[in-house]
Amino acid sequence: MTPVGVLGTGIVGQTFATRLAGLGVDVLVGARSADSASLDPFANLAVRTGSFADAADHADLLVNATNGINSLAVLESIGAESLAGKTILDLSNELVLSDHGFPVPTASVENSVGRRLQEAFPETFVVKSLNTMNCTVMVDPSIVPGDHVVFLSGDDEGAKDRVRAFLASLGWRNEQMVDLGGIESAAGPEMMMKVWMSVTMTRGRDAPRFNWAINSA
Amino acid sequence: MTPVGVLGTGIVGQTFATRLAGLGVDVLVGARSADSASLDPFANLAVRTGSFADAADHADLLVNATNGINSLAVLESIGAESLAGKTILDLSNELVLSDHGFPVPTASVENSVGRRLQEAFPETFVVKSLNTMNCTVMVDPSIVPGDHVVFLSGDDEGAKDRVRAFLASLGWRNEQMVDLGGIESAAGPEMMMKVWMSVTMTRGRDAPRFNWAINSA
Repeated sequence: MTPVGVLGTGIVGQTFATRLAGLGVDVLVGARSADSASLDPFANLAVRTGSFADAADHADLLVNATNGINSLAVLESIGAESLAGKTILDLSNELVLSDHGFPVPTASVENSVGRRLQEAFPETFVVKSLNTMNCTVMVDPSIVPGDHVVFLSGDDEGAKDRVRAFLASLGWRNEQMVDLGGIESAAGPEMMMKVWMSVTMTRGRDAPRFNWAINSA
Repeated sequence: MTPVGVLGTGIVGQTFATRLAGLGVDVLVGARSADSASLDPFANLAVRTGSFADAADHADLLVNATNGINSLAVLESIGAESLAGKTILDLSNELVLSDHGFPVPTASVENSVGRRLQEAFPETFVVKSLNTMNCTVMVDPSIVPGDHVVFLSGDDEGAKDRVRAFLASLGWRNEQMVDLGGIESAAGPEMMMKVWMSVTMTRGRDAPRFNWAINSA
């Protein structure tokens, strides 16, 4: 597999780094700075670490594992020139804290992180995918049975093919990949975050992982 | 089964009227006025017709099959007094026409039709349900295989139980009913309309009906 840059050091970034290292992928995890304490959890993994810009230099495929609320600023810190021609797998959701301290998804047809990133970086290929599930399912779909689905939204077919190949390396089967169309369609999976959070809360913290499936007549 | 009032005469209202008449339910379909031409499609069905207010007078359970963009005005035309104590099964989605002539869902965490109706009519019990699928699946879930799901959101447990009983009469099994919590949670299923439309367009007009399922590890 080709090298991968991972943007973001939270639980999603850590889950990807662990899984990709296990697959033998050449990974560089990027943080705000190369000496950020947020990189400490990666010390025992077979991955390299550095700044966001280092991650972008490292690979043609970047996984955006930052919180959607920060994603635009992270890409701006790297710069359009360094990102030109790269494929960004955007698995972010934008969440803001409510007055009650709960995270609230901001997505709507008018407000999509994926579309905003694509519009801000027209020379970069943004593909929205994987944002509709827990990160443990993202990196190993075999833990959930059946033909549960992963959506793809993006304007560039070549970039979508690269993301498909990446998804396949994680264990996703072609039958599970649902191409929704251009990056305009990214709002749809982002808007699923609200019901995903309700289902997660209803099932409880200790419930088994789940993912959406599409049953057909 | 207890009598049912159906608000709305479009394809969703027609589908419900047909199905409920077939089940022998005492149905009154309401339109803007009792002599509206929009009631013509119901002439050959074993249902009564009348105004929206007539439908509300007819039954303690009302099915809101109006376009979400009109739902508040429809309920206001009936009036809070006539609606007090009634249960409204709200299966609406709010869609506006884009510049390109396509319907665009307006839902967000801040903009939920179900919650807006409940706030406007605090003496009425609004239960959001069924809005995440084609109306042919709503009224006969057996056409799609497996444990595909129907969500319920509402503040009143008694009203939710009445909606559960109604869903059961249409063929929904308890295992398929996913209680998301209070009416605040109605935004979640409403926000699924965007991805539902993308999936529908991707699959094409002649594709078989589908519905969401939740696969668990």
